Amino acid sequence: MAHFELSEYVLRINNTKKKMQEYGIDVLVISDPANINYLSGYDGWSFYVPQYLVLSIDRDEPIWVGRFMDTAGAIITSCISEDNIFGYPDDYVQSCEKHPMEFVASLFEKYHWSNKNVGLELDAYYFTAKSASIFERSLPNAKVKDGTNIVNWVRAIKSFTEIQYMKEAAKITEKAIQIAIDKVEPGVRQCDVIAHIYNTQIKGTEDYGGDYTAICPFLLTGVNSSAPHVTWSDKPIQNNEIVVMELSGARLHYHSPLARTLYLGTPPDELISLSNIVIEGLYKVLDFIRPGVTCEEIEAVWRNNALKYNITKDSRIGYSVGLGYPPDFGEHTLSLRPGDKTIIKENMTIHIIPSIWLRKWGVEISETISVTANSANSLASVPRELILKA
Amino acid sequence: MAHFELSEYVLRINNTKKKMQEYGIDVLVISDPANINYLSGYDGWSFYVPQYLVLSIDRDEPIWVGRFMDTAGAIITSCISEDNIFGYPDDYVQSCEKHPMEFVASLFEKYHWSNKNVGLELDAYYFTAKSASIFERSLPNAKVKDGTNIVNWVRAIKSFTEIQYMKEAAKITEKAIQIAIDKVEPGVRQCDVIAHIYNTQIKGTEDYGGDYTAICPFLLTGVNSSAPHVTWSDKPIQNNEIVVMELSGARLHYHSPLARTLYLGTPPDELISLSNIVIEGLYKVLDFIRPGVTCEEIEAVWRNNALKYNITKDSRIGYSVGLGYPPDFGEHTLSLRPGDKTIIKENMTIHIIPSIWLRKWGVEISETISVTANSANSLASVPRELILKA
Repeated sequence: MAHFELSEYVLRINNTKKKMQEYGIDVLVISDPANINYLSGYDGWSFYVPQYLVLSIDRDEPIWVGRFMDTAGAIITSCISEDNIFGYPDDYVQSCEKHPMEFVASLFEKYHWSNKNVGLELDAYYFTAKSASIFERSLPNAKVKDGTNIVNWVRAIKSFTEIQYMKEAAKITEKAIQIAIDKVEPGVRQCDVIAHIYNTQIKGTEDYGGDYTAICPFLLTGVNSSAPHVTWSDKPIQNNEIVVMELSGARLHYHSPLARTLYLGTPPDELISLSNIVIEGLYKVLDFIRPGVTCEEIEAVWRNNALKYNITKDSRIGYSVGLGYPPDFGEHTLSLRPGDKTIIKENMTIHIIPSIWLRKWGVEISETISVTANSANSLASVPRELILKA
Repeated sequence: MAHFELSEYVLRINNTKKKMQEYGIDVLVISDPANINYLSGYDGWSFYVPQYLVLSIDRDEPIWVGRFMDTAGAIITSCISEDNIFGYPDDYVQSCEKHPMEFVASLFEKYHWSNKNVGLELDAYYFTAKSASIFERSLPNAKVKDGTNIVNWVRAIKSFTEIQYMKEAAKITEKAIQIAIDKVEPGVRQCDVIAHIYNTQIKGTEDYGGDYTAICPFLLTGVNSSAPHVTWSDKPIQNNEIVVMELSGARLHYHSPLARTLYLGTPPDELISLSNIVIEGLYKVLDFIRPGVTCEEIEAVWRNNALKYNITKDSRIGYSVGLGYPPDFGEHTLSLRPGDKTIIKENMTIHIIPSIWLRKWGVEISETISVTANSANSLASVPRELILKA
């Protein structure tokens, strides 16, 4: 049931092994669900219990370790052979007495990995502090190294098929933004607009369905537009109110997020002028991006343009995006900010989001792009403007 | 904007402090988003970056620490005074050079907590191994103890208002299960049924809206009914297929999950008989639950009944449920399984899910209950039966 050719998984594994060698890592323990999916195809909402993919430099296939009841899902969804799928008994689940990492350690004994150089994703989602300490206590001869983001950096450059899925996600994004624009009216409850958005995200198109997204859709009205990660309520939307929408479609867990800002009524001059500055900066950034430039150079294009208007912004203006599971569709690799000297390459995919948050309101207008041979290509096609509804 | 009386937050904080004293903890660092919400009201999809609530035994109010751009959300949604809200600069976000825990450590210096007994949620969601090691390196005089699940155990017994919210969630659950039953038909894409479920979950009722759920809805068709955490695809549902539905409504992040099993066509005898065993066991468990019995005694009622039919089940048959953020609405405290000697108390809330997964198919029929003075009260009202559609 995996969604890529087997050869693509083999390439991903080989690229990961190359990075492991650079870091002097023989065996890598992976907990980030997006990294697990990327290397194996495994797909399930089972990441609320510890689960790992363990990749050894001298074996073709990683092993999958999770809760016994989820081994059926590993057999169905992943490209890993059943011999390499291991389930821990249920009394390891959320127990004070047993920990799944002890089960993992027993597999390290079985595979003779106990004295290897072992990379752990020490700062990844779902890799808890206790998991690391139990691993180190159980395997005192293992030499533990930080393996955080090794797979994430492999993910930074997308294949043709991955970009196809992101384009398909972008079609869902377009539909979801449009339904939000259509449904936002004074007196309509925020939750009712969000319900339409979810319906559209999951239904997808006639040709393919949508997936759950790694971050929920945001509908930030009034003062909440100053607070980018507050979620909706059941309060009605007001007239003369800013409505910031940030959302993504997801296709097989690939995302293409987008933000737009809408005003109900006659917009204040300061909103129009700030929106224009954001849009102008966004266009300049899109014009500048191409293989060979660095992340901080891209940010400087934005920064210098904004400075002309005495606007400064302390937060990054973008990040690598693609495959993701809750809580994040960002990939934790490149960030568009000062100091990030990552060189942009063809087939990177970036969410460019030069939002401005003031004390009482904010503006968000963003694009997700793929880097082509000589430019940036927006995945979705939605007018870049402050949206006005009377 | 907090959804409980201030006095309820004060009580929660005092109950947490009592447990901290039992564990010899002076200062507790909390990362589980549900625990943060429980003690402060803070609510936002910002848990993809490190954020913490820090509760000291000798202060009334915890401090909130998160990304600077999320401080606006903390001011809007939490009951914490602005003086106690701290934002780390954006260059700490997903960086290899700076880590938010260094910023937290600097606050420990400011508050003179550097040599205290400090509880860290070492096995909680979003508390990474790297966070712990940076904390310990930055504050070598702090005596670190495991504070995992301290707040979770306070959460195990619900207030009147919390149970009200769970009953409101249960109304949404009823609607979502009903729309799933209505929309499941041969030829309908799985994603289209799920789109209706999401729409119903978020719209809620005329009186109140719904929230995103901590686990996505499941629609497990055919062989996927053997694999409880596999998610939907865009494949059409087939005739003569099992459809397992497990989903929850959410009201202000309180959940009331429910599972039902449906068959399209004439059900095989073995499905009818297994469903009957599950339902009989569920009724016996519901009859047995009351304050004073233990979790393992409840499980034994199920186990002994199933043994009459030579059915065994290795996984737990239930867990504490309530407030939750992705990835889990389970509370990680009591589990209905052998060895769990937790004594059931009034106002505990439990998802009882004695599902059976066989090699090629499975049955799930569950109830979420609150424990009353002398019995168990199902929060939702949905017939306990194998649902048949011709």
